[in-house]
Amino acid sequence: MHVDGKPYRTIWTADRDGPVTIIDQTRLPHEFALVALTNVAEAAKAIKHMLVRGAPLIGITAAYGLALAMRDDPSEANLAAAEATLLATRPTAVNLAWALATMRAHLLPLPQRQRAAAAFTRAAELATEDVALCAAIGDHGHALIRKIAATKAGAPVNILTHCNAGWLATVDWGTATAPIYKAHDAGLSIHVFVDETRPRNQGASLTAWELGQHGIPHHVIVDNAGGHLMQHGAIDLVIVGTDRTTATGDVCNKIGTYLKALAAKDNGVPFFVAAPSPSIDFAVFDGVKEIPIEERGEEEVSFIQGTTTDGRIERVRLTPQASAAANPAFDVTPARLVTGLITERGILSANEAALAAAFPERVTRKDQSLL
Amino acid sequence: MHVDGKPYRTIWTADRDGPVTIIDQTRLPHEFALVALTNVAEAAKAIKHMLVRGAPLIGITAAYGLALAMRDDPSEANLAAAEATLLATRPTAVNLAWALATMRAHLLPLPQRQRAAAAFTRAAELATEDVALCAAIGDHGHALIRKIAATKAGAPVNILTHCNAGWLATVDWGTATAPIYKAHDAGLSIHVFVDETRPRNQGASLTAWELGQHGIPHHVIVDNAGGHLMQHGAIDLVIVGTDRTTATGDVCNKIGTYLKALAAKDNGVPFFVAAPSPSIDFAVFDGVKEIPIEERGEEEVSFIQGTTTDGRIERVRLTPQASAAANPAFDVTPARLVTGLITERGILSANEAALAAAFPERVTRKDQSLL
Repeated sequence: MHVDGKPYRTIWTADRDGPVTIIDQTRLPHEFALVALTNVAEAAKAIKHMLVRGAPLIGITAAYGLALAMRDDPSEANLAAAEATLLATRPTAVNLAWALATMRAHLLPLPQRQRAAAAFTRAAELATEDVALCAAIGDHGHALIRKIAATKAGAPVNILTHCNAGWLATVDWGTATAPIYKAHDAGLSIHVFVDETRPRNQGASLTAWELGQHGIPHHVIVDNAGGHLMQHGAIDLVIVGTDRTTATGDVCNKIGTYLKALAAKDNGVPFFVAAPSPSIDFAVFDGVKEIPIEERGEEEVSFIQGTTTDGRIERVRLTPQASAAANPAFDVTPARLVTGLITERGILSANEAALAAAFPERVTRKDQSLL
Repeated sequence: MHVDGKPYRTIWTADRDGPVTIIDQTRLPHEFALVALTNVAEAAKAIKHMLVRGAPLIGITAAYGLALAMRDDPSEANLAAAEATLLATRPTAVNLAWALATMRAHLLPLPQRQRAAAAFTRAAELATEDVALCAAIGDHGHALIRKIAATKAGAPVNILTHCNAGWLATVDWGTATAPIYKAHDAGLSIHVFVDETRPRNQGASLTAWELGQHGIPHHVIVDNAGGHLMQHGAIDLVIVGTDRTTATGDVCNKIGTYLKALAAKDNGVPFFVAAPSPSIDFAVFDGVKEIPIEERGEEEVSFIQGTTTDGRIERVRLTPQASAAANPAFDVTPARLVTGLITERGILSANEAALAAAFPERVTRKDQSLL
């Protein structure tokens, strides 16, 4: 999407001998800085320290990380070592393991001298596939927004989103934002309420920034405000992303998503999840019971980063020195609260039968009578 | 309650010629600073700029503000002017209007020369009444916690609270915290999850600070985390405060309270509201439709204050320069989500009949058949 009027992706290579370039998302919205990744250690660090984040972009960055490793040393031992390094960076996103397995399956049968070039080609293909997948989600979601717009007599469609499932979380378009960009680019009037999304504030720092750069009207709100806005008819539609969707339609996403889903249900507001199929884990059936939730460091709650009046990026403490903090990073929204899953194959009901029908090649449950 | 091992109230006078002393709550948790109020303008400023906040403490500060005005000029004109000045400081809390009306009714019949002394006496009485009221809420809530503790075999009772309905919001004990302090002081094992409560972070900065000073184990969490904790059985009980309770038991409280009530309902967690009777507005029957919600400045969302590593209090920007923010300060939790109201007259069901039965002298609805 656009930054200062110029089209960007979140990750790219100028040529196969050069570095892999990313946007340092930890500096946004304060500063737009590019970072060159030249080896697998730098790629792993970029994922671990969240210079790149978002399940799809993590997967693509890991794929390019393997390609960088193959350029340095295309042996099987190094492929395994690089895969282990990259896999250890983040525990929750299923895309990471999926991208690494896909790359390994492609590279292992090849002679060593072909692996580096093949790895860059395959990583670029995965990136292009991710763009196509997000664009398809955008098209299905755009049709949904268009239906709501038809009831609003020209008034903006008000959409609430949580965290950043924007183009910064993918290669382009985003997942939850793809319908918004598609609808806006097609001339519909859109207004977005952006949850700031504590503790890491990806809504206030990333989603607000990318919507602003692309010219989409929006207001940042605190995570507490969405329920009140829904009670007063200020929100027509919620669209969020997902880090992991179960075979039964439960949605594991950034902490706080569940609270917005409860409010949407209580107020009859449609609650949609943009769910690219790589985020769907067909081997998990109960999200609350089965998905391990990453507990991150308490300093993410106790401290926050922002820009001072004289333009410095400063980290400040918010809590008393003596107070501990707890920091679960994700929660699970049960399928019963989800109006629909916007996938690349269309909008599906959030249940096992609908998901199995749309993705029959991925069904793992052996006893089909359970469907 | 205790600060550095020493008992404090939030507002006091050493003698009738001296100032009224308050704690500057905008400096907490970074600094414990006292401020002397010497005239009505300073008292109004302290309320408006939230050096004091919390519905009960706002009322008592306004009462002392009138007393300071009477010391300077005990005329009826000055009484009316001072009342108008104080009433204009904050729009939502019903205690402010109630305290001012109580003071006026007491002072107007008196000769001018008696008014200053009578005003200080009456303000001190109101403060003492507030302490007694909070202590009674604490006793009723303590009995409730004791019942839950009996089911936990010595494990801590985990209580979630939102915003600061602590002793800092009242004269002493607090409302939502009074049951916690009473239970803790009686030897029960208590652990509190403290919602940070964006945008003003009164949970992280005030509740965490006062619980820590009094020695109560706690963790600060982001406002997004409560639902997840409830899904996993980590919370036994929610207790929040209220800025305004309707005759039908709807609860207007800090933005985000409604989301926690929805999560409590969804997970079978008891959701109690500490509701001193001055916070009950017997003339309002539908909280969502009738209560005006204060829309505060967007800079509260866009900026935050904290302490730098070298100890300076610094304000930093969190959002992109070009992004607007919306900032509704309160929301309304419908009575159907409230397990009970902890009042000074006992724990009541959140409905019109129960409230009318407990406070018959305050019922305003003329058609009793509606009860």
